[in-house]
Amino acid sequence: MPVGTKGSVKGLTPRDLRAAGAGVVLGNTYHLYLRPGADVVREAGGLHGFTGWNGPMLTDSGGYQVFSLAKTRRISEEGVEFASVYDGSSHSFTPELTTRVQEALGADVAMVLDECPPADAAREYHEASLRRTARWAARCKEAHSREDQALFGIVQGGLYPDLRRESLERTVELDFPGYAVGGLSVGESRGEMLHMLGLVTPELPGDRPRYFMGIGDPVGVLQVVALGVDMFDCVLPTRLARHGAALTNDGRINLKNARYRRDFVPLDPECSCETCADGYSRAYLSHLVRENELLADRLLTLHNVSFLGELCRKARRAILEGRYGKFAEDWMSRYRAG
Amino acid sequence: MPVGTKGSVKGLTPRDLRAAGAGVVLGNTYHLYLRPGADVVREAGGLHGFTGWNGPMLTDSGGYQVFSLAKTRRISEEGVEFASVYDGSSHSFTPELTTRVQEALGADVAMVLDECPPADAAREYHEASLRRTARWAARCKEAHSREDQALFGIVQGGLYPDLRRESLERTVELDFPGYAVGGLSVGESRGEMLHMLGLVTPELPGDRPRYFMGIGDPVGVLQVVALGVDMFDCVLPTRLARHGAALTNDGRINLKNARYRRDFVPLDPECSCETCADGYSRAYLSHLVRENELLADRLLTLHNVSFLGELCRKARRAILEGRYGKFAEDWMSRYRAG
Repeated sequence: MPVGTKGSVKGLTPRDLRAAGAGVVLGNTYHLYLRPGADVVREAGGLHGFTGWNGPMLTDSGGYQVFSLAKTRRISEEGVEFASVYDGSSHSFTPELTTRVQEALGADVAMVLDECPPADAAREYHEASLRRTARWAARCKEAHSREDQALFGIVQGGLYPDLRRESLERTVELDFPGYAVGGLSVGESRGEMLHMLGLVTPELPGDRPRYFMGIGDPVGVLQVVALGVDMFDCVLPTRLARHGAALTNDGRINLKNARYRRDFVPLDPECSCETCADGYSRAYLSHLVRENELLADRLLTLHNVSFLGELCRKARRAILEGRYGKFAEDWMSRYRAG
Repeated sequence: MPVGTKGSVKGLTPRDLRAAGAGVVLGNTYHLYLRPGADVVREAGGLHGFTGWNGPMLTDSGGYQVFSLAKTRRISEEGVEFASVYDGSSHSFTPELTTRVQEALGADVAMVLDECPPADAAREYHEASLRRTARWAARCKEAHSREDQALFGIVQGGLYPDLRRESLERTVELDFPGYAVGGLSVGESRGEMLHMLGLVTPELPGDRPRYFMGIGDPVGVLQVVALGVDMFDCVLPTRLARHGAALTNDGRINLKNARYRRDFVPLDPECSCETCADGYSRAYLSHLVRENELLADRLLTLHNVSFLGELCRKARRAILEGRYGKFAEDWMSRYRAG
């Protein structure tokens, strides 16, 4: 799911996103609530009408941004008070409010308000937090009324297997149409992340989508898909693009590197995105990146988003054909050697 | 002619430019000579191959940037020495060098090296300068060898009618396939500019294109076209876009203005560019502009470039149908009232 934080996926139009094969597009409730405000988006016909993207959309609850962006915040049973990252003004998110805001934004999938504690928080903190998150989830479900919008629950519990299990049971008990695994990919090692995810995914209902929050590097994507993940969001492809880096079948390349100044071949000869199909050379892209030209952002973002979409389509085919293990292993070894 | 200073028109691909109805695309020799270097562009197949734009292109000689960007420069009969705006390194442009560089860049139209003195320079300076520019023009013509590239002369002479006439005679004597009027739109009033331009254009050969260097606002475009100008370049539409301003049939609008926050109509209902046809509302564009989203630059640049292209097509039709005066007057009065 390409991330359209503030109602646009960095430089890409809905036309571009369709051409890039984007599935679900994500919007950030925290940002959209503060700017331009949920009322403006609702008046425009929701995020679909406002942005012009008529494919599926998902909004997060805003909780993650409150915990990662806000300099000050105060959590209580009621909800969380925080200072806006834009102007320091005071705001309060409760389960009822973030649900109402997400109904106004009108994405196809909304998320419950959760707390995502730091990976290294004390066990006691994680325990109290996951229980509060479960109570918040129940309140979100109670507050949620749009029948054309699915509300997903979120499993927390840090790196404690028994707390993960407790969180999972409390969340699944509420019977959501989909479940996310949160609180990973937040500073722990990749090994710890995969270990913990591997304990959780098999216990989630097999007939509901499983959403892993916050992964976007190609190898990580193939690893979490191997553990049963169906959905994931990622600022990585768009952020890398803005830093002049491109994902290719032969690994990640940094176009600022001097070797690309006279490299007149396309970015990735195996890729069929507009950037590669139209034949822009690495030399040209490298020039645009060095000169901070807007076109660099656009062409690399288009490529990276398309590339990850294509990787997901390949993974899906491999799963359907019962050869995912071999596919993922071969793909990762070539990518890592690149 | 939309300006692709460093080999790209701010965020637009060749596909976008074609959709926007762009005719000639301009490249800046000064910038491309310094970065990535004429050799890199030549190896890529010239500017067409490097950028992927297969329509007509024009490069300036780099002279204007030497005189407007360089902190230090030294002019002699031989040419001009200057310090690079990028890293302060020393360079020297001679008529022979800028001609050779433009042949390597390979645009369809190249320009002679000229000096563009400040409008308020002394008469004596303008007189000496236009004579040197004429001698440089002769050397450019002598050095120019690509038969698939047209080399245009440039008329200077400041705001002195007799010096303009002298420059025109010296330049036309050299028999170029096209002529530019330079040294205007550099600080003098609009009235002075039009007065001077009106003295020059009737004297230029009627069977050669007349290029006015440096105008891009819609009213100015209609005014210079009325005086017989066939070509002009303009950073204005792209620069305005990056500052959140859009050209519309009802005048220029600044999307940062609070009145657009809840304005859910398209930018210009009469415009058929992608931005307007796809129905992005002023409210959405206003949000993107406020948030400095890359998509704002793209959608507004697409619109402004398309808008000016469409204005030129309307002007051309009006000329062919013998109703230009009325057309321009009506158009300007509506635009100015907006």
